[in-house]
Amino acid sequence: MIIILSSQATDQDVEKIVANLEGRGYGIHLSRGVEKTIIGAIGAPDEDKALIAQQIETLACVERVVPILKPYKVVGREFHPDRTMIDVRGVKIGGDEIVVMAGPCCIECESQTLEVARFCKKAGATILRGGAFKPSTSPYSFHGLGEDGLKIMAAARDETGMPIITEILDVRDLEMVAKYADILQVGTRNMSNFGLLTEIGNMRKPVMLKRGMSSTIEEWLQAAEYIATRGNYEVILCERGIRTFETFTRNTFDVNAIPAVKELSHLPIIADPSHGTGKWQLVSPVAKAAIAAGADGLMIEVHPEPQMALKDGPQSLKLDTFAQFMKELAPIIRAVNRVPAWSPVSELAD
Amino acid sequence: MIIILSSQATDQDVEKIVANLEGRGYGIHLSRGVEKTIIGAIGAPDEDKALIAQQIETLACVERVVPILKPYKVVGREFHPDRTMIDVRGVKIGGDEIVVMAGPCCIECESQTLEVARFCKKAGATILRGGAFKPSTSPYSFHGLGEDGLKIMAAARDETGMPIITEILDVRDLEMVAKYADILQVGTRNMSNFGLLTEIGNMRKPVMLKRGMSSTIEEWLQAAEYIATRGNYEVILCERGIRTFETFTRNTFDVNAIPAVKELSHLPIIADPSHGTGKWQLVSPVAKAAIAAGADGLMIEVHPEPQMALKDGPQSLKLDTFAQFMKELAPIIRAVNRVPAWSPVSELAD
Amino acid sequence: MIIILSSQATDQDVEKIVANLEGRGYGIHLSRGVEKTIIGAIGAPDEDKALIAQQIETLACVERVVPILKPYKVVGREFHPDRTMIDVRGVKIGGDEIVVMAGPCCIECESQTLEVARFCKKAGATILRGGAFKPSTSPYSFHGLGEDGLKIMAAARDETGMPIITEILDVRDLEMVAKYADILQVGTRNMSNFGLLTEIGNMRKPVMLKRGMSSTIEEWLQAAEYIATRGNYEVILCERGIRTFETFTRNTFDVNAIPAVKELSHLPIIADPSHGTGKWQLVSPVAKAAIAAGADGLMIEVHPEPQMALKDGPQSLKLDTFAQFMKELAPIIRAVNRVPAWSPVSELAD
Amino acid sequence: MIIILSSQATDQDVEKIVANLEGRGYGIHLSRGVEKTIIGAIGAPDEDKALIAQQIETLACVERVVPILKPYKVVGREFHPDRTMIDVRGVKIGGDEIVVMAGPCCIECESQTLEVARFCKKAGATILRGGAFKPSTSPYSFHGLGEDGLKIMAAARDETGMPIITEILDVRDLEMVAKYADILQVGTRNMSNFGLLTEIGNMRKPVMLKRGMSSTIEEWLQAAEYIATRGNYEVILCERGIRTFETFTRNTFDVNAIPAVKELSHLPIIADPSHGTGKWQLVSPVAKAAIAAGADGLMIEVHPEPQMALKDGPQSLKLDTFAQFMKELAPIIRAVNRVPAWSPVSELAD
Repeated sequence: MIIILSSQATDQDVEKIVANLEGRGYGIHLSRGVEKTIIGAIGAPDEDKALIAQQIETLACVERVVPILKPYKVVGREFHPDRTMIDVRGVKIGGDEIVVMAGPCCIECESQTLEVARFCKKAGATILRGGAFKPSTSPYSFHGLGEDGLKIMAAARDETGMPIITEILDVRDLEMVAKYADILQVGTRNMSNFGLLTEIGNMRKPVMLKRGMSSTIEEWLQAAEYIATRGNYEVILCERGIRTFETFTRNTFDVNAIPAVKELSHLPIIADPSHGTGKWQLVSPVAKAAIAAGADGLMIEVHPEPQMALKDGPQSLKLDTFAQFMKELAPIIRAVNRVPAWSPVSELAD
Repeated sequence: MIIILSSQATDQDVEKIVANLEGRGYGIHLSRGVEKTIIGAIGAPDEDKALIAQQIETLACVERVVPILKPYKVVGREFHPDRTMIDVRGVKIGGDEIVVMAGPCCIECESQTLEVARFCKKAGATILRGGAFKPSTSPYSFHGLGEDGLKIMAAARDETGMPIITEILDVRDLEMVAKYADILQVGTRNMSNFGLLTEIGNMRKPVMLKRGMSSTIEEWLQAAEYIATRGNYEVILCERGIRTFETFTRNTFDVNAIPAVKELSHLPIIADPSHGTGKWQLVSPVAKAAIAAGADGLMIEVHPEPQMALKDGPQSLKLDTFAQFMKELAPIIRAVNRVPAWSPVSELAD
Repeated sequence: MIIILSSQATDQDVEKIVANLEGRGYGIHLSRGVEKTIIGAIGAPDEDKALIAQQIETLACVERVVPILKPYKVVGREFHPDRTMIDVRGVKIGGDEIVVMAGPCCIECESQTLEVARFCKKAGATILRGGAFKPSTSPYSFHGLGEDGLKIMAAARDETGMPIITEILDVRDLEMVAKYADILQVGTRNMSNFGLLTEIGNMRKPVMLKRGMSSTIEEWLQAAEYIATRGNYEVILCERGIRTFETFTRNTFDVNAIPAVKELSHLPIIADPSHGTGKWQLVSPVAKAAIAAGADGLMIEVHPEPQMALKDGPQSLKLDTFAQFMKELAPIIRAVNRVPAWSPVSELAD
Repeated sequence: MIIILSSQATDQDVEKIVANLEGRGYGIHLSRGVEKTIIGAIGAPDEDKALIAQQIETLACVERVVPILKPYKVVGREFHPDRTMIDVRGVKIGGDEIVVMAGPCCIECESQTLEVARFCKKAGATILRGGAFKPSTSPYSFHGLGEDGLKIMAAARDETGMPIITEILDVRDLEMVAKYADILQVGTRNMSNFGLLTEIGNMRKPVMLKRGMSSTIEEWLQAAEYIATRGNYEVILCERGIRTFETFTRNTFDVNAIPAVKELSHLPIIADPSHGTGKWQLVSPVAKAAIAAGADGLMIEVHPEPQMALKDGPQSLKLDTFAQFMKELAPIIRAVNRVPAWSPVSELAD
């Protein structure tokens, strides 16, 4: 770490800090400028560096402490330069193929779920999404079917062969949800639920970690580190929009985050333009943008009758709109030298 | 709700929506302007209004749906015009007295906790704060002493008589934490942890609900509604700063929120200038500002040696700084016609 | 407009507002719900609606006023459903062709500018960008060559045939800058410089209006309206990123804004991924994303030696990186059924 | 500056950077850690440090460049530890006295302006505010009376003896506005209008510089530096709220900025709770908060009939509300050991 002292710092202040850090095993480089004195501290092997930095920053004679190393390691590219590819019942995420996860926001009933699943599969989706437990800002809203919803999803998987992804909302349901889900989804409100992250880290099951709506990329990667340091390396990141001052869209989809994450981490990244925009008319263009920017896949909300949906209707695509979208997506995928995980089924949208 | 139709909406579109809403029991006011048609829908007693609004908004012929009623009820002033006062072992929160909750960020050891508790009490604090379970962005940081920390807090309460407030981080620990705590604290990362809110709603124990760092005031009041609708009305709100583009401070303390909440809700509101600024030098002026703006109390991090603290040292006040602050605070409290919950103990800071 | 009254409003309050609005020529729809009374006011032809709304909102008995009409008109799609195409010396912006504007951030010297211009043209760019007047947060930074810079740009235009775009920073320089520029650029810091917008509105010259870094889409369209209402309809919008809490990138490129603007307005929209990301490594993926999302063109900073650039080096592409990027861009353009404004010159990047 | 190299940097990369910086006159401290190499560069006297930092950051082998010195100097406390006090026709800003600037948002007519001026003076205000040139997001709104408005303000000054502050919107009007104004006000949209800042810097007249609505504190101080480096040291800062995701208030008043500015700069700071909240009900509590946090004064919008105001009615105080507010403010001022710039005139509000 680098310690920038305030211009009021005395020689004694400097000596005290140096002695403290040397006592902890740091190598010290001291440099006195005309206006500022700077202490470089290198290589303390066994302690919590972030804490020491914070403690040093607390001193009145210190203006600022600048960390040198990134606050994550296992999920960083410096630790593991090759890209991670995750295999979910034969569907590969993070390889050349672009994967589309599609389905309704919430599981509402069995016949509808099966209808959507069959349709999405035919249109090219390879993973079925659906919520059985739904977070909701209002205490008066629909909160999902719970385990019954998971059973419906499992039935849809049995019929279509598509692996299923669903959100784990409450750590107490983890074991039960994990029995059904092929990929566990951690939602934006749980990105900093460190108890949940730790338990998932102790499992051996793929997890998709959505970015917190006000989390920086660095905090998001630290959350992934929580999971990975427990030994569960099958972490998929999902950009789903951040909260900004703009109100026309529900969130601001941070397309910059896609190439940024690819530069900083080896984990695959999925884009969720449904939440990232909140408006079905914007889903298709922003989904294409995400793929053009390098995303490894998409998560799209699809509903046969959005105007009857029990949640998120305004951001759900109708079946035929989804099919049309998938047709338009394939050329973009090829334009970035990747491969759709499906073969073109042109009749669907015609 | 008010439905603003797009200029492309046909007469048939209008009739369909009107029929749908009348079928659900709404009274309808239709008004056709030169450029826009507007449907006012009033008084549907038994359904989920937010859902119906969302479903209507999904229709292509609809430009926008404007809700009329606020999305919370029980915690709103229209429902309950008198201010709520909460009694915690004889300490009144939300009345004329201004309450100061003080103590270390984390409980680190017994002797230190007792030292801080005794000192804070003498300086005027009436509630002891301290963390036994700590959320932390980094998986490598200190996470608290757990139940041992709670036992230390209980010992400090036994000695000093101060009620204790501590954070409940994981819903699985709720029963255990509630055994020790006089006030349960829900942290900023858990404001939208709806499972936890529901369980706390089922208890009969005061809770302090911190604002989510990217939550609007309206969402925060909805989170309070989650708890209150279960029957636990002893909810204290806590403004602790929001996330903005400013990086000089850790958060932007939203002082506007204090009078805003007082206008919209009857619940008491506490300010946390330690997290709201992240810098100990700013804690005192911002704490005074919060009281001047109408806050019912403060939560302040105090540590005997901030440069040795295991967490949040840079935002913790030293003991003598805290004592000096309390002396300076009393005249502000009186200037807004309120009363310090303590008698002046002038010798402490002299 | 729709006026939502507070639950304290009396019958007299309602009558007073109704009489006031009827006096101004509004048609009134009054609807009394159980909890709220709502006044719909329709069709006041000649006055400043925003002002009246604000005055009504000032009344203590009013909770909220909801406007019905959008705050812009001439630049909206409801006013002019067909897309606007702007012809700049034969280069068409807003049609099927995707236009790339490229060049250095600042004009530094003639030989370098000519080198970049020739190279960019060969690589496919059709408009030359370059700054002669540069805004700069620091008073100690380079501020551009002024009119000398414009002369260099004009020379580059003479040689290459590329039209030139350059920023007008100070309204006093407008006439002089307009003598040289083919497109005037209004930067992010001037989006709300209403004096400048008005003067540009009085000209007949294409203008590219960058989004204010903290402006909503609606405010941005209102700024365009300032120009258009004076009679200058040749307005090109440019998304260049907004300010958010994320610090890894210089700005957050708001890709949602591209399809949003296409839905709300008939004006062409250009993307500036150089400022939108602030990092040259992210420019290519985000540029591709913008095209996939429907942008009509790009503005890219290119410099022969970014490490020697007098401004914005970290976000400038080197010449060969730019050529490689242009090769990769063409297939994306075709994948969204559009046409590159250039013919592929494959040898450049090989 | 400190240069953190990427883990891919070679010895040759390091040597090249070192040679480059030594050639520019920097002293170099090189430190090689296990994972990262760091170059400290100290003391290059005569060049643009920010530019060199940017150029170095452009290199592929560089991960990050950390500046050591603050990007402003003349306005910083390290340069000038004593607080600056500005004398405006005998009214002192930045000393022990708290100054209140009050008046209508816009000057609308002479009789009303005189009425407000007389009343505000009697209630305790010592400076008269009023707008003759108004920025407005909508091209259809009122833009002020121009020079006629300034003449009205001058007449009010003649009668009441209060110095006047008014906004300079367009650099072309500067000379004319300066003829009338005692303090020039630079509005939030012009904080980065560097041409205007430079011209004001060349004058010898007090200026109040409002914070840009999306500007960091550091950028704001750099804008002040623009003015001060030209020789005009009479700069007053004004916090007026920043743009965040919260929509209940017009802006988020950043109370943290007040003590932060006091720590970083010697310039006086005024608070504008009218714009900082956008709601008259919140003006009084937030104004008190600003004073409690250490502000040197306030700027308050006052209007005899807010519901008829041509601008900003919802955030304007009525005359009697203002008088009541001033009565309540005095005890807060004394509670922070400062002095109201007025003597209590109790009869006004009774």
